[in-house]
Amino acid sequence: MSTTLSDTPTLRAGAFGNATCLKCRECGATRELGPHYACYECFGPLEIGYEFGEVTREQIEAGPANIWRYKALLPVPDDIESSPNLEPGFTRLLDARNLAAELGLTRLWVKDDSTNPTNSFKDRVVACALSAAREFGSKVFACPSTGNLANAVAAAGARAGIRTVVFIPSNLETPKQVNSAIFTENLVAVDGTYDDVNKLASEIAGEDPGWAFVNVNVRPFYAEGSKTLGYEIAEQLGWRLPDQVVIPVASGSQLTKVHKAFRELVELGLVEDKPVRIFGAQAQGCNPVATAFKDGVDAIRPVKPDTIAKSLAIGNPADGIYVLDIARSTGGAVEEVDDDQIRDAIVLLARTEGIFTETAGGTTVAVLKKLTETGQLDPELETVVINTGHGLKTLDAVSGAVGPRATIAPTYDAFTAAGIA
Amino acid sequence: MSTTLSDTPTLRAGAFGNATCLKCRECGATRELGPHYACYECFGPLEIGYEFGEVTREQIEAGPANIWRYKALLPVPDDIESSPNLEPGFTRLLDARNLAAELGLTRLWVKDDSTNPTNSFKDRVVACALSAAREFGSKVFACPSTGNLANAVAAAGARAGIRTVVFIPSNLETPKQVNSAIFTENLVAVDGTYDDVNKLASEIAGEDPGWAFVNVNVRPFYAEGSKTLGYEIAEQLGWRLPDQVVIPVASGSQLTKVHKAFRELVELGLVEDKPVRIFGAQAQGCNPVATAFKDGVDAIRPVKPDTIAKSLAIGNPADGIYVLDIARSTGGAVEEVDDDQIRDAIVLLARTEGIFTETAGGTTVAVLKKLTETGQLDPELETVVINTGHGLKTLDAVSGAVGPRATIAPTYDAFTAAGIA
Repeated sequence: MSTTLSDTPTLRAGAFGNATCLKCRECGATRELGPHYACYECFGPLEIGYEFGEVTREQIEAGPANIWRYKALLPVPDDIESSPNLEPGFTRLLDARNLAAELGLTRLWVKDDSTNPTNSFKDRVVACALSAAREFGSKVFACPSTGNLANAVAAAGARAGIRTVVFIPSNLETPKQVNSAIFTENLVAVDGTYDDVNKLASEIAGEDPGWAFVNVNVRPFYAEGSKTLGYEIAEQLGWRLPDQVVIPVASGSQLTKVHKAFRELVELGLVEDKPVRIFGAQAQGCNPVATAFKDGVDAIRPVKPDTIAKSLAIGNPADGIYVLDIARSTGGAVEEVDDDQIRDAIVLLARTEGIFTETAGGTTVAVLKKLTETGQLDPELETVVINTGHGLKTLDAVSGAVGPRATIAPTYDAFTAAGIA
Repeated sequence: MSTTLSDTPTLRAGAFGNATCLKCRECGATRELGPHYACYECFGPLEIGYEFGEVTREQIEAGPANIWRYKALLPVPDDIESSPNLEPGFTRLLDARNLAAELGLTRLWVKDDSTNPTNSFKDRVVACALSAAREFGSKVFACPSTGNLANAVAAAGARAGIRTVVFIPSNLETPKQVNSAIFTENLVAVDGTYDDVNKLASEIAGEDPGWAFVNVNVRPFYAEGSKTLGYEIAEQLGWRLPDQVVIPVASGSQLTKVHKAFRELVELGLVEDKPVRIFGAQAQGCNPVATAFKDGVDAIRPVKPDTIAKSLAIGNPADGIYVLDIARSTGGAVEEVDDDQIRDAIVLLARTEGIFTETAGGTTVAVLKKLTETGQLDPELETVVINTGHGLKTLDAVSGAVGPRATIAPTYDAFTAAGIA
């Protein structure tokens, strides 16, 4: 067992680009870069610290049409593009005039991550985790997951040619199993709940340092990938920050990283500083952060999830307290919607903008609607809503809600009689 | 009934950019731009003629990361980006080292169109058809389809805010209906085969000139969208043509347009001229062009399709004779594979490159493999294979083929006992 891998991996120079250390988000203690996720001092969560130097718009714009255009702002080496990866990101930012009109907003954009390589934002974070796993010399690339993350890890691992193992609960529906099994021969079904699978993953990560679990022991590197959503929004707006952003909250990591991205861009002089109100979206069936926000408390009380928005169903979100901080300090909010509102919002987004989102995106659009109706969001300000995944992955949620308006005989007479013309 | 719409629509200046006429592919007769698809003289198929003037790499590179970077080469107005559309294209060209090694090829690229807005190359052609429909003042945007085209038309029409009607055979499986019905309230099920649906569409197009059927009366404009696949391949290779390209053949239009795109780039001085061998891929269950190629004849004998590659199942392909010409004149070939080879190739592409393709892409990769094994394709030459769509749309094809390798109890002991470490 190569414990040295875990404790002090021998890193090549520049293995993590401008990243310089791991820093505790609670006590601020720093330590060397490595496959660590908890602080030595206080067991708080670690995140990446950087010394950026100069980064210019021109450097970024000269880069490829994927997340590696921002490589100087990520914990990845300068030659990252030469290592096979899924090349995710630089997805569409669509001027959503129809949806804006429908909701009574002046200016609305949809950042659409459903067109990533495996059709969710997870390709961004997994690409960063893969780079870290390579630099650590990890032997196995792995994750516990029920959906989007499993797809992203299995696909990225296949393309990278690294041994990949994906753990899922054994009662997962066949289509969802196929979405990951297509990429890897090492899909492992575990008789238990997602929490059981997660616990097993942590145990393996603790015992076998050669295993890189993207969302466990390389989590600080993984999480940085979500910053690219924030960078892209700003660049695609013409190097400006929006006034308001609505972001789904599962662990809460994505919301905190978009916020971090905006702050970095300001500090680097790449965009002008301005107030950005940040809003979080949860499903009523898994609403621990929304509840804490509404109650005005700092502690997150874990819940047992029961919602169709399964990719948001984290009952005890690791970054929940940071989400609360950001929503409160920026003048945002964390709101919740029920399953019917989620379904309606999936149809609304499809019918207005031609985007088929999964239940997580339905949650986010439904929360956008609710925030507008309740006056928590200013309809006159420029707003961005993030769509994190694809409706083809949660087809069952809307199967009963839409269908043909008529069934006709194959004749012109039948067509005219049906009143469709 | 506004017959003037069909016959001589009043077009604004620059409505079709550098396009100047419709030209018969058989007799060369030209006529004015309009919603026409058959020659006045000989009933041959029409295509777009241009007078390009100067087009530079710099102009193109300064454009957006979607097909509109090539707007000067398409029948669209210069202000096309200001009209809401799905902004498709500029998809990944992946250096496929693992698949190349598996097949014994020196250099292989996968052009991956599964990450388009509705997950197939159809978003490219539909975007061009939508622009034409707008310029013609069409009242309805429509198509007959069983799959990818229906998705693309329904989504693009929703975002454009144009009345959209999509016709499908009534026996289509529910998930495929949902994929289109999510975008439009005007999904019309027709009691009949796809051929019946198609015939009804042609009848409506003939009776009601306000209807723009993307693949019927605006087909010449629609088809041009496939050229962007060729432009992107050349630009993403660093403004070079590849030596060999493998392209799926349904109607055959895509293959002829990629060829046309390469010729245009050469004529415009944007790439150096060189021989490019062009190969077509069909399924054994719908192989009329492959059969004609093998038999060395010029006529295509229609077949009744029976294959899992449903998006390639056109028994009487309109562009079949042009595909034969191009394959023969460039030193390419048209080959076929059976359903088992298609399934195996879907898994092969996923396991080597992390791309989940639909059955059409499985057909293309399987044909690439067969062409290599039979020596028809030169393994030393640089090759591009086109993946036109997403595996989530044809999940059933591989549901039986992949799955978990083990089911274990949620304990570290069970994990080690299973021999996965």
